[in-house]
Amino acid sequence: MRNIVVEESRVLDVEELDVEMVERKGLGHPDYICDAVAEAVSVGLSRYYEEKFGRILHHNVDKVLLVGGQSNPRFGGGEVLQPIYILVSGRLTTEVRTSSGVEPVPFGSIILDSARRWLRENFRFLNPDLHVVVDYKVGRGSTDLRALVEAETKVPLSNDTSVGISYAPLSTLERLVLETERMLNSKEFKARYPMVGEDVKVMGLRNGNRISLTVAAAMISSLIKDAGEYWAIKEEVAEEVRKLAGRIAGDREVEVFVNTGDIKEKDIVYLTVTGTSSEHGDDGATGRGNRVNGLITPFRPMSMEATAGKNPVSHVGKVYNVVAGAIARRIYEALRDRGVATAYVSLLSQIGKPIDMPHMANIKLKMAKGAVLSLDVRREAERIADEELSSITKYTEKIVRGEANLF
Amino acid sequence: MRNIVVEESRVLDVEELDVEMVERKGLGHPDYICDAVAEAVSVGLSRYYEEKFGRILHHNVDKVLLVGGQSNPRFGGGEVLQPIYILVSGRLTTEVRTSSGVEPVPFGSIILDSARRWLRENFRFLNPDLHVVVDYKVGRGSTDLRALVEAETKVPLSNDTSVGISYAPLSTLERLVLETERMLNSKEFKARYPMVGEDVKVMGLRNGNRISLTVAAAMISSLIKDAGEYWAIKEEVAEEVRKLAGRIAGDREVEVFVNTGDIKEKDIVYLTVTGTSSEHGDDGATGRGNRVNGLITPFRPMSMEATAGKNPVSHVGKVYNVVAGAIARRIYEALRDRGVATAYVSLLSQIGKPIDMPHMANIKLKMAKGAVLSLDVRREAERIADEELSSITKYTEKIVRGEANLF
Amino acid sequence: MRNIVVEESRVLDVEELDVEMVERKGLGHPDYICDAVAEAVSVGLSRYYEEKFGRILHHNVDKVLLVGGQSNPRFGGGEVLQPIYILVSGRLTTEVRTSSGVEPVPFGSIILDSARRWLRENFRFLNPDLHVVVDYKVGRGSTDLRALVEAETKVPLSNDTSVGISYAPLSTLERLVLETERMLNSKEFKARYPMVGEDVKVMGLRNGNRISLTVAAAMISSLIKDAGEYWAIKEEVAEEVRKLAGRIAGDREVEVFVNTGDIKEKDIVYLTVTGTSSEHGDDGATGRGNRVNGLITPFRPMSMEATAGKNPVSHVGKVYNVVAGAIARRIYEALRDRGVATAYVSLLSQIGKPIDMPHMANIKLKMAKGAVLSLDVRREAERIADEELSSITKYTEKIVRGEANLF
Amino acid sequence: MRNIVVEESRVLDVEELDVEMVERKGLGHPDYICDAVAEAVSVGLSRYYEEKFGRILHHNVDKVLLVGGQSNPRFGGGEVLQPIYILVSGRLTTEVRTSSGVEPVPFGSIILDSARRWLRENFRFLNPDLHVVVDYKVGRGSTDLRALVEAETKVPLSNDTSVGISYAPLSTLERLVLETERMLNSKEFKARYPMVGEDVKVMGLRNGNRISLTVAAAMISSLIKDAGEYWAIKEEVAEEVRKLAGRIAGDREVEVFVNTGDIKEKDIVYLTVTGTSSEHGDDGATGRGNRVNGLITPFRPMSMEATAGKNPVSHVGKVYNVVAGAIARRIYEALRDRGVATAYVSLLSQIGKPIDMPHMANIKLKMAKGAVLSLDVRREAERIADEELSSITKYTEKIVRGEANLF
Repeated sequence: MRNIVVEESRVLDVEELDVEMVERKGLGHPDYICDAVAEAVSVGLSRYYEEKFGRILHHNVDKVLLVGGQSNPRFGGGEVLQPIYILVSGRLTTEVRTSSGVEPVPFGSIILDSARRWLRENFRFLNPDLHVVVDYKVGRGSTDLRALVEAETKVPLSNDTSVGISYAPLSTLERLVLETERMLNSKEFKARYPMVGEDVKVMGLRNGNRISLTVAAAMISSLIKDAGEYWAIKEEVAEEVRKLAGRIAGDREVEVFVNTGDIKEKDIVYLTVTGTSSEHGDDGATGRGNRVNGLITPFRPMSMEATAGKNPVSHVGKVYNVVAGAIARRIYEALRDRGVATAYVSLLSQIGKPIDMPHMANIKLKMAKGAVLSLDVRREAERIADEELSSITKYTEKIVRGEANLF
Repeated sequence: MRNIVVEESRVLDVEELDVEMVERKGLGHPDYICDAVAEAVSVGLSRYYEEKFGRILHHNVDKVLLVGGQSNPRFGGGEVLQPIYILVSGRLTTEVRTSSGVEPVPFGSIILDSARRWLRENFRFLNPDLHVVVDYKVGRGSTDLRALVEAETKVPLSNDTSVGISYAPLSTLERLVLETERMLNSKEFKARYPMVGEDVKVMGLRNGNRISLTVAAAMISSLIKDAGEYWAIKEEVAEEVRKLAGRIAGDREVEVFVNTGDIKEKDIVYLTVTGTSSEHGDDGATGRGNRVNGLITPFRPMSMEATAGKNPVSHVGKVYNVVAGAIARRIYEALRDRGVATAYVSLLSQIGKPIDMPHMANIKLKMAKGAVLSLDVRREAERIADEELSSITKYTEKIVRGEANLF
Repeated sequence: MRNIVVEESRVLDVEELDVEMVERKGLGHPDYICDAVAEAVSVGLSRYYEEKFGRILHHNVDKVLLVGGQSNPRFGGGEVLQPIYILVSGRLTTEVRTSSGVEPVPFGSIILDSARRWLRENFRFLNPDLHVVVDYKVGRGSTDLRALVEAETKVPLSNDTSVGISYAPLSTLERLVLETERMLNSKEFKARYPMVGEDVKVMGLRNGNRISLTVAAAMISSLIKDAGEYWAIKEEVAEEVRKLAGRIAGDREVEVFVNTGDIKEKDIVYLTVTGTSSEHGDDGATGRGNRVNGLITPFRPMSMEATAGKNPVSHVGKVYNVVAGAIARRIYEALRDRGVATAYVSLLSQIGKPIDMPHMANIKLKMAKGAVLSLDVRREAERIADEELSSITKYTEKIVRGEANLF
Repeated sequence: MRNIVVEESRVLDVEELDVEMVERKGLGHPDYICDAVAEAVSVGLSRYYEEKFGRILHHNVDKVLLVGGQSNPRFGGGEVLQPIYILVSGRLTTEVRTSSGVEPVPFGSIILDSARRWLRENFRFLNPDLHVVVDYKVGRGSTDLRALVEAETKVPLSNDTSVGISYAPLSTLERLVLETERMLNSKEFKARYPMVGEDVKVMGLRNGNRISLTVAAAMISSLIKDAGEYWAIKEEVAEEVRKLAGRIAGDREVEVFVNTGDIKEKDIVYLTVTGTSSEHGDDGATGRGNRVNGLITPFRPMSMEATAGKNPVSHVGKVYNVVAGAIARRIYEALRDRGVATAYVSLLSQIGKPIDMPHMANIKLKMAKGAVLSLDVRREAERIADEELSSITKYTEKIVRGEANLF
């Protein structure tokens, strides 16, 4: 019997607040890179462990640090003077005792390969060979698989007392911020505007009915010939974002600003050689950026846990955030036409207990104006939560396949 | 004319929620160490800049990483096998052009001195010479003081578009969590229980009227002779916390758990040589722990910005969080007897604008049951906010003197 | 007037000694890698400086450290567990003031590119992406090219008081050791024996007329299917070396030993995944291996200076060793049929003096039995030395083109 | 039966050569620091192993790298801007299996403690807390003491095929160079001239009967008030060295130069804050400085092996150099009045053989003019060598007690 509590939320929804603030740090942002590298390493390790030992072994690499480099961009060219430094840190299983002896894990090669591969596949102008130093400092541990045989069929135990939090659906502003970054980093957009780099940060502010979207987009110096072209492209980017905003937030007034730090008369513009501000002084760290839904939302409940880099089996700081989001989305989809306006889900773990049995699963349903939370709706929400929790281990697989959004 | 908006909060207060969760990572926790080292370095730099150049120059060292060491604690002794590794990273002003030439800043010595001094002054059993490697990787910048003369008298400009958030007062659970850690790390307590280490983490959960407090306290191995003594001390610690809870949350039922990861039959206990879990595998990073009020509160509005390590002059991610807390406390103290139950303050900056002129200062007053938000109360709240904002630069000094709580 | 002193050597020649010992650390040896990486970086910098600024600017990167990794080779396979760590350190010109402003040098990219490229081009089974972390720590300096204009046409000044030493010809044992390594690392040999790795160390000992050659050759684990094949290949390698020895030291008895650390009964063999012992625990450092003629010769005069990584313009610790070798070889070639058996050349610099004017150029001619050092021979030796010294700057170019042997 | 070959040397002695060059890198020189730190760590480990496990276990930390810092010395003051970075690297025994289980070794603490302690005890103005970062990167190994019981009483086996070389006595120039540095770094001298730093490098050149001694001595900036005092002190230092030279090389003409890089008109002087050039840009590495007799002597036989940091039990690259020196000194002392002018000793090891049974011990006796090498003298030399070799393990203890000169 799972401890699932469904109740009505009497809290005002974010959309009802006068002021709403939302931020997304996009693909090339230093904090995003740290999340992505941490997760790439975790996935790399998980796959190796699974293939070699039939199960994902303990690891936690959720502390990646990026120290910004130094660069010299200029219209039509530029170069990286000092590389970006990425330090992967954490703990992991480095040797495994099996019935046939002690097997060492090629963890160093896995870390370097995973990190470098992610960089190579996600940037067009960042060359990991010249522009990045990847290093690591990790604690080592060993596992005795022989002692684990019996435990194999059981549900993993929570590694910590922690909380996973999410909700559905996104507010209009939240969708707008998320979709703006996705558009700017989409293949289609890059094909048309190759000079817009991967480091895109979007901040949205809603004040009553008026929205302002501030986009910071690192431009690729080699692809822009002069200041005139730069300012023209900025205007085109703003126009594209305005079009998107028209589709998403049609009824609201949306102002769009791009690269507000620029100062025309001083020739201060946001140029980069590689497409990320990491190349010149911006540092990053895992867990300092987007939450599990891809956003930073100060007025929504938020978990402080980093989802990236943790092992996807027993680390509730990761799994519960993912599952809370999945439950919230399913409940909202299933029950929106029965009056559910927003579903908030928080899952509280207790260290040492099976992860499918949270200490408490709290579901708060905010009903639409005039709608009443019926017993049927409660039961359906509870059923959905129970179903997802009983099959919680499938999220481990989704995460390892890279199918779960984490940041 | 400051843009200060005061309104009534119709949101349920945390105390009214069925479930409340609060966490504090105490003095010796790896994330706390990273916050504290980042801030110590920022203060060290600020003081040097002020003394030498008459003003605090640009810096941001809010990315400190701690990689856990390896240790071998045992009852009555133990040793550190591999030291804790602390990497300070960020950007700072490393040379200053004055009318008499270019003055270099001894930044490396300041970083090492500040970090080591903090460690030495805050731990009793951690020896920075043997147990810690402190290193740094920072970007360098230069400032031309000659160009800054005219700007000197002006209010600094915001370095970013960001939001600072706080509230007052703390809920009962929040106070309980905060005071528990403070008690366990107080001089008086350490005098009586020297074997309780500095790494104390407190997690509080309230479920309706029932509170459970879970304390994780690293014990000092050399001061505990055997398992019997260990279990006895745990019970005494729990009893001390229960007494405190009686004073703070008298009307509520409080259960206290200490070191719940221990397993008696397997001799698994929470022993450390130095008093911090950093000595054996726990990693840390700046900005991953407590918010500006010393707590992690998932159901309260929270800023994701790290306050530690940022420069206290123009970095709104730091200053606005501090000022928001100060305004909230003053409003609550001044107006509690006129019905204000909780004051929420959020300050939104706009990059490039004077920091005393936020883009918006939003004050939400949650009124006590039956109380009405009068025009007078509104005006008084507005007046307080205006007063604090107009004297905002005094917070810079408070921070540099170490008088502002930041985490 | 150069201070060139030519005299007869009355010292016994190495060939006349009863005991002679010679060693060569080959291409894949950790110390060789450090020399090669240091030199690759120096050449990379030199070329950049020349192309961009018209001259080679100050640098010295003669302190490269290699920390061995950890690997798990096995017949038919194996993997690298932890990568090799290479730290390039030294000093270099990182910015240049020209008439059009301050130009930054992309030194970080040059260092990484030069080092990684050398590794990629010189190993067949070492993948720099997975098996190596390259990092650097260098001091920065700036140059004002405007102040250097007048100096441009002059001969560079010695950066230090130092000595360069060499001799010609090599003894039989020396040639044998050198040629053995070259053969084992030649394209032809690798085509026939791909399983013989790049890390080849050759030690030669002559005791009277009997020579023993000990070869340590790292074998490639993936290309050898079992112990039987391993021992067979060792025998083939020994046989190839014996054939070479027959050609070079025909009249002497030569014993050849390969991988003497192997122990058949304990299955201890010299297997590597990548072809270098650096992959598992062997460390290296610039300047700890071969001298300028490619050999370590304890009973010959030797300079302790590292030639690798120093700037090839004014660093006499590099240039004088190269030039001493060139002078010795020319003298020997020109005068061997007039009785010169061996020419020893030592060039002593004085800090601050033009490098073409050594404090002393000392030439010792060992005459063949019965031969007499005539005045003509003296004068010819002096003339050759004078000619080489007067055109000393051509060696800078040879070094930058990679045409001078340095280690 | 040891393979000891005693023969007469017909080679000219160094004193008979026209040109002689000798160098000593003193206490505070970057290369010396690297040697000293490597050896301090080896001694620290050896003592720990002995005390805890009854024997010195395998280790080799002979690759220490020092990357110079950055400083800003000025008359009457100055500061270190960036610390010196010292990286200790190598291999060592990090865990030991005994009959009572696996004992971990606190190697990280031992490394940091040994290195920092040496720095603290050997410098007056270098503060390891502010001016130095000590870090390490080492390979780990384990030992099974249970398997070693039987081997305990035996003589250790050579870890490598290598050669140890030394001679006695020192030439006049060699003594002069050595004693000059010792005097300048003696307590007495520092008491009178506290402003003379620890980084003293002495280079001696003899040209026929004329000696020039070039001393580079880092001056302490805070103790010298202006250029006038600086130039006065330099003259006093030169005068003190001249007096010493008068005692040691009375019959020869000796010129003394101090800090020849100084340029009076450009105010270029050799000032340091800490007493070592490492504080500003000079890098160092183990094994790049003095040989086992404390000197660099290009015209004498030299071993390229670093003696510092290697384990003193089985590492012949260390032990054989020490023993060769001891044998040479004993032979010379015992037989000088029977005509022995110089004794050269080289000891050649063979990997895997007991270290008291070298592959060859070669003793070359250079006889004084007119003296004849008698059979008695031969036998006595052989007897001495045999005696020292048979008690070779005592040198291990001497080294661990810090009583053997190594560099």
